[in-house]
Parts: sequence; structure tokens; C-alpha cells
Amino acid sequence: MNILVINTGSSSLKYQLFDMAGPTVLASGLVERIGESRAKLMHKKRPGQDGEGALTREEAMPDHGAAMRAVITLLTDPEHGVIKDTSEINAVGHRVVHGGEHFHASTLVDADVMDAIRACVPLAPLHNPANLIGLETAQALFPGVPQVAVFDTAFHQTMPPKAYLYALPYELYTELNVRRYGFHGTSHRFVAGEAARMLGKAPEDTNLITVHLGNGSSICAVKGGKSVDTSLGMTPLAGVIMGTRSGDIDPAIIFYLAERKGYSLGEIDDILNKKSGLKGICGMNDMRDIHKAVAEGDVQARLALDMFGYRNRKYIGSYMAVLGRVDAIVFTAGIGENDPVSRELSCRGLTALGVELDHERNQSPERGARDIGAAGSQVRVMVIPTNEELEIARQTGEVLRAR
Amino acid sequence: MNILVINTGSSSLKYQLFDMAGPTVLASGLVERIGESRAKLMHKKRPGQDGEGALTREEAMPDHGAAMRAVITLLTDPEHGVIKDTSEINAVGHRVVHGGEHFHASTLVDADVMDAIRACVPLAPLHNPANLIGLETAQALFPGVPQVAVFDTAFHQTMPPKAYLYALPYELYTELNVRRYGFHGTSHRFVAGEAARMLGKAPEDTNLITVHLGNGSSICAVKGGKSVDTSLGMTPLAGVIMGTRSGDIDPAIIFYLAERKGYSLGEIDDILNKKSGLKGICGMNDMRDIHKAVAEGDVQARLALDMFGYRNRKYIGSYMAVLGRVDAIVFTAGIGENDPVSRELSCRGLTALGVELDHERNQSPERGARDIGAAGSQVRVMVIPTNEELEIARQTGEVLRAR
Repeated sequence: MNILVINTGSSSLKYQLFDMAGPTVLASGLVERIGESRAKLMHKKRPGQDGEGALTREEAMPDHGAAMRAVITLLTDPEHGVIKDTSEINAVGHRVVHGGEHFHASTLVDADVMDAIRACVPLAPLHNPANLIGLETAQALFPGVPQVAVFDTAFHQTMPPKAYLYALPYELYTELNVRRYGFHGTSHRFVAGEAARMLGKAPEDTNLITVHLGNGSSICAVKGGKSVDTSLGMTPLAGVIMGTRSGDIDPAIIFYLAERKGYSLGEIDDILNKKSGLKGICGMNDMRDIHKAVAEGDVQARLALDMFGYRNRKYIGSYMAVLGRVDAIVFTAGIGENDPVSRELSCRGLTALGVELDHERNQSPERGARDIGAAGSQVRVMVIPTNEELEIARQTGEVLRAR
Repeated sequence: MNILVINTGSSSLKYQLFDMAGPTVLASGLVERIGESRAKLMHKKRPGQDGEGALTREEAMPDHGAAMRAVITLLTDPEHGVIKDTSEINAVGHRVVHGGEHFHASTLVDADVMDAIRACVPLAPLHNPANLIGLETAQALFPGVPQVAVFDTAFHQTMPPKAYLYALPYELYTELNVRRYGFHGTSHRFVAGEAARMLGKAPEDTNLITVHLGNGSSICAVKGGKSVDTSLGMTPLAGVIMGTRSGDIDPAIIFYLAERKGYSLGEIDDILNKKSGLKGICGMNDMRDIHKAVAEGDVQARLALDMFGYRNRKYIGSYMAVLGRVDAIVFTAGIGENDPVSRELSCRGLTALGVELDHERNQSPERGARDIGAAGSQVRVMVIPTNEELEIARQTGEVLRAR
């Protein structure tokens, strides 16, 4: 079975075509700047096999339909392609950012599902409209092929009310859907599953803290394989410190900035989402740049790094309190997989709580899933590369089988 | 030495006169509704000695000066008073809410100090102006008597930058003083000192989590006797769930409410500070009412209570991660001292982290400072009644001695 995984942004389209037998990735790629005068398409045939069949092309693509048609042309191209025609695509799996409270699991897309995704637009005004365009485009170009929506929020729908509700007037929840939803669910689910497998335990017996640190970051408390709390909130602004997002702040700071600086809410929104986080503290939001600056004695970069690690550590502690027994802390995503310093700062001082890194293993440039906890560490510490696309493909397959 | 402790609100004035020899409280009282047509004065001579000399009086008091003159008249009254004249008052200690970054300790008040307190008004626009009025009134009515300012924020000035900074553009800190200050410092300091004494340890060897749960609430991580992190932020809105204040929320909820409901920032400020917290969830903000409602099967009251305990538990866990070794968790203030259910919910599930309540001791109606941890609990759990007035008097005495 071949499954095409699609992730549509407002002006971008990422894709991976899986042969689920392996599973292996037959082809993957990315179209950027859709709608601009020259869009850019990067395509790889059998990625990982040293760039054979890799291709970059620039051409006008007025909309997502044009972009997806270009992708189909490449996938079926005699030289760069991997399939004869679109009939070899058995299903399309779509990343959809916000499923609100409608969706507790991945689902086959029909008109009702489209309506429900549309109803979540106010909760994710930047993301869901793009995801809807992706769905509509795929429905038009792959007639009769099952489309499956896989939600970033669905994994967290198992949170109990005490974790997902805010201490706000209750009608803001019942009337306006104000609650914690959490995001990165596909990633947290994927690494939680892998971790349970590596620990040799059934997911339902496994308590984990999954630490997804990328440009966006979130931490999740996983109890018996289910999300019971997570650091992102109603929106992807709350929680730990991110590349350009503040994470948690005293909400009254918004009133203070409006009062003292005369900023509009739009301007403050922009500051908190795009000019804060690591970037706000030290002017850089790429962890590699920050490490370089720290090595050169940059005090602000050092501060940003310390704040980042400290906030992560506090979340890990709070989720230890939530879970009681914790089998493992699992680091994943760009920073979590590749940055030993961030992992070390996030675990620092947790020895009394049973968490101890093996410093050598933590420093190792090894890349696969691995245990970096000290031999005697009561709580295992692991690094597991995330694979959201594979998780979307797997869930798409599961939805098809359950039909 | 007799010290008068003053706590001035916008329309209120609380006072306690201490004889520091005991120390014993010679008299205490409260004036409410200053500036309204009839102010109300409640005065107790030697409180605790069964109401002898207690008195309530209603009369017009146009301003804080009139209120303080009425207090002086009572303190020197042959029947209700305890001193012959104001010369028997050796110093006046004032509670001041916000000392910004200027004040790391209590301080003798002079013109520069008054200016510095004035400079903090933008950070505490409701509280500092009232405290300034109290200071000016006392300076006028007790000429030549040393006035000492004791700040709610000073105890937390030992927090490291990684704990007090937000991940916002750094110039918001350097130019606008946006940072975590924390409050309830006098209470956290008092119970931390008492806890060290009860543990038989020097404060500098003692790590504590002090849990101040009243109508306003905050939790503090105390390392070696010093505050290293606390849940209230730049303002008293952030952190745990309070009577009517939300505590932590996704800050983007403010943008969403403005967008979806058309609320002004003033209206949202009002919602978050006065209509949220326990009250927002269940309509009640008095813990005793909530327990009564829970007993009668009120689902929202149960939810509010669960959310309250859960949020406290998460903060306790995060501060365990901050401190590494914790000697004791210390509950104090109205709810912390008197509500075994809140204490139980705040400690629930922390057994794996070395925290175990003795359920019988927790339930005991005993009132003094006490240990409620189970015999084997690695981390002690204590209840210690706070006494902010005594702490202000003590610090006032210390400032005088250090002159």
C-alpha cells in the first residue's frame, strides 16, 4: 500500500510518499512560496539514498492546486518519479493542525469532517485554512482516493478537565471553546510508542515525559500511553521557551505593554509570537547560532540558553508530579535530537528525582533512537528521532483498515 | 521597644502595635471605607485575651490622615488604649507592595526611598499609591519617629535571572522593568525562617517549598533560605489558581477574547483579576463555601477544587526540579493553614518524589505550627501559620539596630 502524506502551510506544501510494506519513503519534497512569482520545488527520489534523483526547480505556481499538480507530475515522471500513475496512491494522509474537541483520533475525510475542520478555523486562523486548501486540492486531484485527516491536537484529547481547563469564567469554555488543546500530538504519540517498544513495555503500562524541542517546542505528560497534560495551550504560544515564541508569561504583561507603550493587540501578538523566545533574549533563534555565540562569550546567548533549559526543567518536574512514576524522559525533534547541551540543561539537578544522564552517551554524535541515562538512573532518559510523516502514514493506514 | 505596623490599602488601614520584648501584640485593628460617608473602625486591645477592650465604631473619616488620628486616639485612650502617648512608639513599620529592583531588603524611609517607591507605581498602580499615603500620613503624625518600609517583593530579589526574566524582547526588561518580581515575600520569608527553626537547621542549609494559599496565593522555591523562584510574576495575576484570579493562562487567550467578544483590555483585565480563578469555575471564591457545595454534590465546585489542587501540585513538582533536595513543603495562609483537603490535593501523587502526608495529622484541627508528613516521608510536610505583621515588626527592629 502506498500512502501520500501531505502537510500544507499557507504558502507551502510538504509531501512524502510511503510504501507501507517497509515502510520506506519512495519520494519526498517541499514546495515553497506558492502564490509568489517563482515558487521553489525541492524533490527527492528515495531520500537517504545519496541524493540520486534529487531535483530543485523554480517556476510560477499560482496556488496549491498548481503545486500539487507539479508534485504529481514529478512522482509519475519516468526519471524522477517512483510510480506509474496516481492509481498507485492508495490513500492520502493530511496533517491538520487543529481538530478542536471534535477529533480524538485520525479520521476519514467527508463533507461533515470538512465542516468540522472549518469550524476550528477561529482556533487556528493561520493553519486550518491552509490545511483545508490541501484537503480540497487533494480531493480534486485524487478523485475516489481516501483522504485521512491526522490532527496535531487529537493525541491530547485524553487530557482530564483539570489539565485542559483554565481558571477562567466557565462560559468561555462552553461558549467559546477556550481550553488547552496542545499541539505536536503526532510527534508525542510517535516517540511515546517508540519509547514503550524500546523499554519492552506495553504502552498502557508506560509513563513518559516526551520533550519535543524544535523551533516550536512542547513537553507532554504521557500516562499509560495517553496524553494527560502538555505545555502548549489553546494556541501554540504558551509553555516552554521557543525560537521566537515567549511561552508562559504573566498575562498582565499584555495590559502593561498596551498601557506603557501604546501597542495595539496585533503588535503585542506579533512581539510574543515572532520577536520573543530565544530570539527576544539574544537576537538568535537557531540553537546552533546560539552555541557558537556562547563559545565566543556572548552573555545574552548564555542567558537565553540557561532560561531555555531552566523552563524545560521546571516542566519536567511538574509532569513528574503529575505522573508519579515516570519510566522515561524522551527528547525529540531538531534540538531534542541533536543538542546535548539543551538536554543536559533540561535534566540538570534532577538527580534527587531519580533522573541522571550519562554524560558521555549524551554527548555522543550517534543519531538513532538511544538511551542516554546513566546506568543507575531510576528514570530512563532517551533520544528518539521523531517521524511525524511516518506516524501520519501509519494512522492513515489504520483508518483505512478500520473502515 | 514598641513598633507600630501599618498596612494601608486604597480605602483601608490595618495596624498592630507590638511590644518587641515578647514579642506581644499590644493592640490591633482595622479601618475600612476611608473616604466614604461612614468609615468603620475595629480595634482590639491585647487581642487574643478574649475580646476585652474590643471596640467597633463608625464615623466619617475623609482621608487616611483622619483614620490614623483616630487610631492614635484609641491607642492612647485611657480605657481602650495601651500607651500613654505616641512617644512610646519607637518606630513604624510599613508594608509596601512593590519595591521593584530598588529594594532587596527592608529600609529606613527617607526622601530618596519615597521617590523610589513612587517610581514603582506603574508596576503596582493600585497598591503603591495607597502605601505612599500611609507613609506620608505616618511621617506627619509621628515626627522624628523612624519609618521603615518592608516590601512584598524584597525577599524574591535573590532570584537568578533565569527565573525572573521572561522570554520577551530583552529591552522590555531594561527599559520597562518587565520581569518577575513575586509577592507575599514577607509571608514566605516568615514561614521559611520558622520552618528552618523547626527542622533544627540553619536557614542557609535549608531548601523549602513554601505554599502560601489565601485569597491570593503563591508558591516559592527557597534555597538555602533565599527565594530562587516564585509563582507570582510581574503582577499578582500569574501562577496558581486564586480566589478570583486566573493564574497562568495561554497569553494568546487575551487576543482571542478581544477578537471574538470585542472586549476592551480593561474588560479582560477585570475578567482575569476579578471573575476568574475558583470563582470563574464554580461561582464561589471562598474555600469554605466550595467545600460545602462539594458536599452537596456541586460538580463545578468539585472541578474548581481539583483544578486548584492540580495546579499547586504542578508548581510543587517544578520547584522540586529547581531545588534538587527539598527539606520540607510548608503550607501557610488562610487556606494553607486551615484546609486539609487543599493540602491533600496539592500533595497527591507525590509519593514517588518522596512526599507523603500523614492523613490523620493533616486532618487534625490543631492550629499551631506542626509537621503533617508521614513518619517515612523523605520530604517533611508542615503547616506554619504566617504572621506578616510580626515579620514586618521584626524587620523594622532589625533595620533600627543596623543603623
